[in-house]
Amino acid sequence: MFPRDTGLLVGKVLQGETRTLARVLSMVENGDPLSESIMHDIYDPARRSLTVGVTGPPGAGKSTLTCRLIGYWRGSGRKVGVIAVDPSSPFSGGALLGDRVRMQEHASDPGVFIRSMGSRGHLGGLAGSTRDALELLAAAGYDPVIVETVGVGQAEVEVASLADITLLVLVPGMGDEVQTMKAGIMEIGDIIVLNKADRQGIDQLESSVMASLELLPEGSHRPPVVRCSSLTGDGIEELTGEMDGLLSGILDRDSLVRRRTTLILESILREKGRHMAARVVEARFGSIERAVDLILDGKTTPYGIGVLLSEEHASKAGD
Amino acid sequence: MFPRDTGLLVGKVLQGETRTLARVLSMVENGDPLSESIMHDIYDPARRSLTVGVTGPPGAGKSTLTCRLIGYWRGSGRKVGVIAVDPSSPFSGGALLGDRVRMQEHASDPGVFIRSMGSRGHLGGLAGSTRDALELLAAAGYDPVIVETVGVGQAEVEVASLADITLLVLVPGMGDEVQTMKAGIMEIGDIIVLNKADRQGIDQLESSVMASLELLPEGSHRPPVVRCSSLTGDGIEELTGEMDGLLSGILDRDSLVRRRTTLILESILREKGRHMAARVVEARFGSIERAVDLILDGKTTPYGIGVLLSEEHASKAGD
Repeated sequence: MFPRDTGLLVGKVLQGETRTLARVLSMVENGDPLSESIMHDIYDPARRSLTVGVTGPPGAGKSTLTCRLIGYWRGSGRKVGVIAVDPSSPFSGGALLGDRVRMQEHASDPGVFIRSMGSRGHLGGLAGSTRDALELLAAAGYDPVIVETVGVGQAEVEVASLADITLLVLVPGMGDEVQTMKAGIMEIGDIIVLNKADRQGIDQLESSVMASLELLPEGSHRPPVVRCSSLTGDGIEELTGEMDGLLSGILDRDSLVRRRTTLILESILREKGRHMAARVVEARFGSIERAVDLILDGKTTPYGIGVLLSEEHASKAGD
Repeated sequence: MFPRDTGLLVGKVLQGETRTLARVLSMVENGDPLSESIMHDIYDPARRSLTVGVTGPPGAGKSTLTCRLIGYWRGSGRKVGVIAVDPSSPFSGGALLGDRVRMQEHASDPGVFIRSMGSRGHLGGLAGSTRDALELLAAAGYDPVIVETVGVGQAEVEVASLADITLLVLVPGMGDEVQTMKAGIMEIGDIIVLNKADRQGIDQLESSVMASLELLPEGSHRPPVVRCSSLTGDGIEELTGEMDGLLSGILDRDSLVRRRTTLILESILREKGRHMAARVVEARFGSIERAVDLILDGKTTPYGIGVLLSEEHASKAGD
């Protein structure tokens, strides 16, 4: 099924060899045909590596918080991986942009591996390559792997959903406005971090958040709320304590592994499914663009093509 | 190809009969098998109806701005449709939640049709049903149709991408923090609205935004920046002026129509593709859950299943 000359790369990634890791990450990002085979060989559902998503509005101090978390985990000797997802950036690879510069204090530490992922590929590609980058960093021995997103795009939402624990980072300043926030938004975060707790407005922020959480439906998970100052480091220990609590409590190991596996499979079904549908359209109309031409000429509609996709596949499945 | 008893519903939607419109919206949302046929009959790429996306962080005053825009367009006699997308809400249909209550001043106006879309269906379903709701409101004669999103989820990002013009709404308060915002985020908005311009901090917000826009790559579209106060109504006229300018200038009618058609087709390819891939997995392994079991048992990997999907489809396409 697979070509064989990828064994060396796989071996070196599993040994944690960073130059090979960087090379394989680029192969994944560039959609190299061998990358699928490498991912197949490297994948191990039983691998224990915590994935932490860090999300929140721009300016919430996500990078500074990430930086603090790196420091905390480095202090206990863990190798920490960071994937900084920024769909709006045309850069990727080693590029550290904007506020990510703050993470550079860790850039020379061999126990920390930081990778930025930008929108190099086509639509939907970023979600897939970030999903795979996560697995690769875990395979190379990084635990935890932090995925920091700028929090606005489709790819980032998909990626955040792969994380075992997601931190929703909020700050005072949007304080008096949070009460209009839909309670449900809060459900994105397994833990809500009130960052910049040294600032004015932190009390209003906390009471607004608490009021929003009150509106959650009966029986739904109420995320713990932790005050934090990435600047001073206050609250970081409490935050990691809450994370450990979640991991040992609500989220047992088996269900975490099953959940992540299911999400990875779903993500691959979406990616491959899009290709399968496009190929049917191409076989029938020549190209997607030509199908659009026919729609604009009134010969068919996107919904008619949808029915065709359902029917075509049903008839083939019956072969 | 289609059953025929949907003609009556189609006719009534095209006449703008709101009770039928509401019924068909529910059919679409519930995934009624007849809804695909109705959408096919109703679809007209040449239909002229402006779609305006309103997005931004929680608390930016999106609903109040939407309310002002409704008032403005009602003043010139246009029928205005509003789709309020909230993936975190278990409610849909007529439900007006949280800050959307502010729109109720227009709820009794027969020239305004407001519909909330919540996460009733399965994953990915909301994007599809909102896409179709947009077409239905346009078919019923609403022009413009405003799509307001809470701005955090995958479905919302997908939906926002269907809009002809997207307004990114920002407010002072996150002011001193916007400089850390990635310039690229700005590219989401065709127009950047600085809302609550009556507030302190508006000048800092504007200079931060301007500084961020400076960082955009050469030759990329620099969105106009408009100050606005939804509270007083100041700036609304300037905002709609900028929208008209965009429509008559950069965005010519043909390219708008082609763009929207392509996006709708892409959205349908994703939806159907996911089903096609799932059916292949079900045919091979019994169910998705059973495939996950096999992965957890180490018999295959999600990537191995990915290769299988590519191969299976390639062989069938060759029949």
